[in-house]
Amino acid sequence: MKTDIQIAQEAKMVHINEVAAKLQVDADDLELYGKHKAKLSNELWEKVKDRKDGKLILVTAINPTPAGEGKTTITVGLGQAFGKLDKKAVIALREPSLGPCFGIKGGAAGGGYSQVVPMEDLNLHFTGDFHAITSANNLLAALLDNHIHQGNALRIDTRQVVWKRCVDINDRVLRNVVVGLGNKMDGVVREDHFVITVASEIMAVLCLADDMDDLKKRLGEIIVAYNFDGEPVTAADLNATGAMAALLKDAMKPNLVQTLEHTPAIIHGGPFANIAHGCNSVRATKLGLKLADIVVTEAGFGADLGAEKFLNIKCRKAGLKPDAVVLVATVRALKYNGGVPKAELGEENLEALSKGIVNLEKHIENLQKFGVPIVVTLNSFITDTAAENEFIRKFCEDRGCDFALAEVWEKGGNGGIALAEKVLETLANKESHFKPLYEDSLPLKKKIEMIAKEIYGADGVDFDPAAAKSLKKMEEMGFGKFPVCMAKNQYSLSDNASLLGRPQGFRVHVREAYVSAGAGFVVALTGAVMTMPGLPKNPAANCIDINDEGMITGLF
Amino acid sequence: MKTDIQIAQEAKMVHINEVAAKLQVDADDLELYGKHKAKLSNELWEKVKDRKDGKLILVTAINPTPAGEGKTTITVGLGQAFGKLDKKAVIALREPSLGPCFGIKGGAAGGGYSQVVPMEDLNLHFTGDFHAITSANNLLAALLDNHIHQGNALRIDTRQVVWKRCVDINDRVLRNVVVGLGNKMDGVVREDHFVITVASEIMAVLCLADDMDDLKKRLGEIIVAYNFDGEPVTAADLNATGAMAALLKDAMKPNLVQTLEHTPAIIHGGPFANIAHGCNSVRATKLGLKLADIVVTEAGFGADLGAEKFLNIKCRKAGLKPDAVVLVATVRALKYNGGVPKAELGEENLEALSKGIVNLEKHIENLQKFGVPIVVTLNSFITDTAAENEFIRKFCEDRGCDFALAEVWEKGGNGGIALAEKVLETLANKESHFKPLYEDSLPLKKKIEMIAKEIYGADGVDFDPAAAKSLKKMEEMGFGKFPVCMAKNQYSLSDNASLLGRPQGFRVHVREAYVSAGAGFVVALTGAVMTMPGLPKNPAANCIDINDEGMITGLF
Repeated sequence: MKTDIQIAQEAKMVHINEVAAKLQVDADDLELYGKHKAKLSNELWEKVKDRKDGKLILVTAINPTPAGEGKTTITVGLGQAFGKLDKKAVIALREPSLGPCFGIKGGAAGGGYSQVVPMEDLNLHFTGDFHAITSANNLLAALLDNHIHQGNALRIDTRQVVWKRCVDINDRVLRNVVVGLGNKMDGVVREDHFVITVASEIMAVLCLADDMDDLKKRLGEIIVAYNFDGEPVTAADLNATGAMAALLKDAMKPNLVQTLEHTPAIIHGGPFANIAHGCNSVRATKLGLKLADIVVTEAGFGADLGAEKFLNIKCRKAGLKPDAVVLVATVRALKYNGGVPKAELGEENLEALSKGIVNLEKHIENLQKFGVPIVVTLNSFITDTAAENEFIRKFCEDRGCDFALAEVWEKGGNGGIALAEKVLETLANKESHFKPLYEDSLPLKKKIEMIAKEIYGADGVDFDPAAAKSLKKMEEMGFGKFPVCMAKNQYSLSDNASLLGRPQGFRVHVREAYVSAGAGFVVALTGAVMTMPGLPKNPAANCIDINDEGMITGLF
Repeated sequence: MKTDIQIAQEAKMVHINEVAAKLQVDADDLELYGKHKAKLSNELWEKVKDRKDGKLILVTAINPTPAGEGKTTITVGLGQAFGKLDKKAVIALREPSLGPCFGIKGGAAGGGYSQVVPMEDLNLHFTGDFHAITSANNLLAALLDNHIHQGNALRIDTRQVVWKRCVDINDRVLRNVVVGLGNKMDGVVREDHFVITVASEIMAVLCLADDMDDLKKRLGEIIVAYNFDGEPVTAADLNATGAMAALLKDAMKPNLVQTLEHTPAIIHGGPFANIAHGCNSVRATKLGLKLADIVVTEAGFGADLGAEKFLNIKCRKAGLKPDAVVLVATVRALKYNGGVPKAELGEENLEALSKGIVNLEKHIENLQKFGVPIVVTLNSFITDTAAENEFIRKFCEDRGCDFALAEVWEKGGNGGIALAEKVLETLANKESHFKPLYEDSLPLKKKIEMIAKEIYGADGVDFDPAAAKSLKKMEEMGFGKFPVCMAKNQYSLSDNASLLGRPQGFRVHVREAYVSAGAGFVVALTGAVMTMPGLPKNPAANCIDINDEGMITGLF
């Protein structure tokens, strides 16, 4: 069987001008990066902004398991299937981070015959957006430390610096560092921390900003530290806004690529969903809605993380209204949730399935709370049996959800036609009554409790004293109206990664909270989730190679 | 008077396809980055590699002063002047680092009417080459620390880790850090250091590599640490080579842009000349020599740094033979060397000029030791007087050098015609008998002493015991045949930045030495030179801004 990268490398891509033409986008509105990647110009938005919006479909999933779910694969396959049905559709995805490519997860461009290409470019530097974010993040940090070194006119308390440096690499030793060692000319010593670029507030700002003015406003509002009176010091106070915005000039423009079947895919922004808000950029989604009749987008990890934040943060902030949600599961993953070891997932096991399906059940219930029609789909594996599929279909239909099988890994768009038709049927027959889960006016602690109880199924929330104090301070500072960006492990509905299925009788532990004033949300860190991943014992990097013709192997 | 950025932003650029056509390069051999930047494909080299080489001209300068010299301006203006004379010429420059843009120096794309454009893109992310280098550098560091964390099978001595992380920002607090703090899962604690990206060995490797195979060989040879037996541990030992090379796939390809007069400019690689080898890539220079009849290239800072390393390292390694050297000075800078304060440089002062011209004299003598014909040029300022110019002309001609005035800042290519004609005359009439200053077989300490005495004019060299020990170890390890890459302040011929003119009776102090086994040279750090700059009290970043149409101001 061919690997994903082999399939991707064998792809016959068309020139990106041809892909753009499917959306009636002129070559003049493209800024080419080679023949198969382009940025969509700022002028394009001006031309199309008064058009009527297309339909917005969010693809989300059950909690990820080692069995694999394939949310991106379904997103791409569904987009391709709409193409087969002659619908004008566009896919809107996040850009992958370099970190996981060299760690454990591999690339993030879909799989099998449902991939976006050029796969290596996407997974490596793509059009440089993440590098621009890393640069802007670290410029701000350098300006901050330089300000302290040059006399500290703003009276920054070095014990209360909250801005962290970043790299787009999994590098555990950078989680906690001491900087400024050496002598007087080497700056002021303080404790510091690095996060992975996808967890940087600048990533969130870029993904939520409407335009350059809004970007600059948000960048300026970023709180980098507190002074000796406990008052916030912002990026604007450091005169850093303009230089950061200049670094982000091109990163602000959405990128266009294609799927294996030449369906247009807008790929832009990429905050992780466990430690950040997990959605592609507002600009990309809004542009997609003007250019196509259907936009298929995706939010990271399970619906408890990516979808919750897509609905409560991104849609709220951007005024977006999803028309339907596609909820992805696999027979294998549901059996894994039912206690079957990975090696035995190939065998029919209806008992385990009925035990593990509670994970799907909870995600269905959760999404229904947002008032959006749901289509459940199974990303088919060859070992799935008819009885298993039928069991799941009935389970979903009993709960008022539509259902369709998808065979997009193996068959590309053709394998997604049943799903695409079911989605079209849903769009035609079921109205979306989308509303966020909570009001802006709810206090921060109550928002966290609501998410923990309503979405995770917790009995309640325990706040570390430091977290409670932070939340109180944020309310006093006027940030109480912000939505909350939960940082939680992706594997469980709870904040304990080992609790599969539908955990009950647990409490969520919030150990830290801080405001991302530029992004416009408050982050709550739960359990042991970390904003800088580490590399595993055998990193994927060890197997990656490139030959003298530029062909890359081992990137998966 | 218009600023450089205003002139650059008013430029009417032609499509990069048109620029390439001047070199008979097909659009098919370009990988476009927008309309005005392109990478030159690997296939192009295969097509042209058997052609006869054009002539190679190196532009270098006296030691830099606050008065400004304009080496890049002359390089660009000379290239443009060849265009006016209907010569098929190409300019080969280094890519600018982000660090100085936000610090004190500003951009690096020439000045006035002799600039490469698009200026903002060049100075910000350009085509992402430096970000690729930063990523590869830091991936190697992460793999190294992960190896230690995961059991340290290679027995790496954490006190003898020599690989440093990097950022492309001036950030003094990262010079000396401690990483790995926290708990057991946060890695092993050790002292670490960051350098600026342009000082990374990967930058040097990229600039010296012939092709992908050579790149991989060199990357694998990089020494990252020593084990408890004192034996070197390499990037290959960490299985990091393939992944690093994959990250550098596109960064290996030279970039094509244009000057304000549409002269083709190949911009590729950019090691600093004070802390690294200071030349653009071998691939770019070699490709230029196949595509054009004349290649005008540049090496960083004064001839004691960039030119010395261009001739002793780059030409030696790549088998290049420069046909002529253009040595840039200004009347103002020579008077500054003669002791005139910056505010009084606008007044005629032949006495100070005759005192300060010894700096130029020493560089002429130095370059003559390499057997290359020299053309001295003055980058004209409006305050220069005829008597001053005449004094310098006679001084140069008395020493066997050709001489021409250049007014390229004000007049673009037209202002460089006199210089271009003088260079053509030199090429026609004077043969180059280029040879490096020293043989491979000379011991490392002797190489350093030879450069210090012959080029800097020192009486001798003092080696710190640690440096002497390192040099001895490198000889034992078999690296004695490598050339030496001197790291020295750029402002003085000596290793003391305050000694202007032609210092005498001084000794050079080598405080540290290490091998860059992948690059293929030994680095000797002299005086107080640092591989990570700091930001000044009022960083340029504070004045940079961008408006809602994407127009950048304050980048100079």
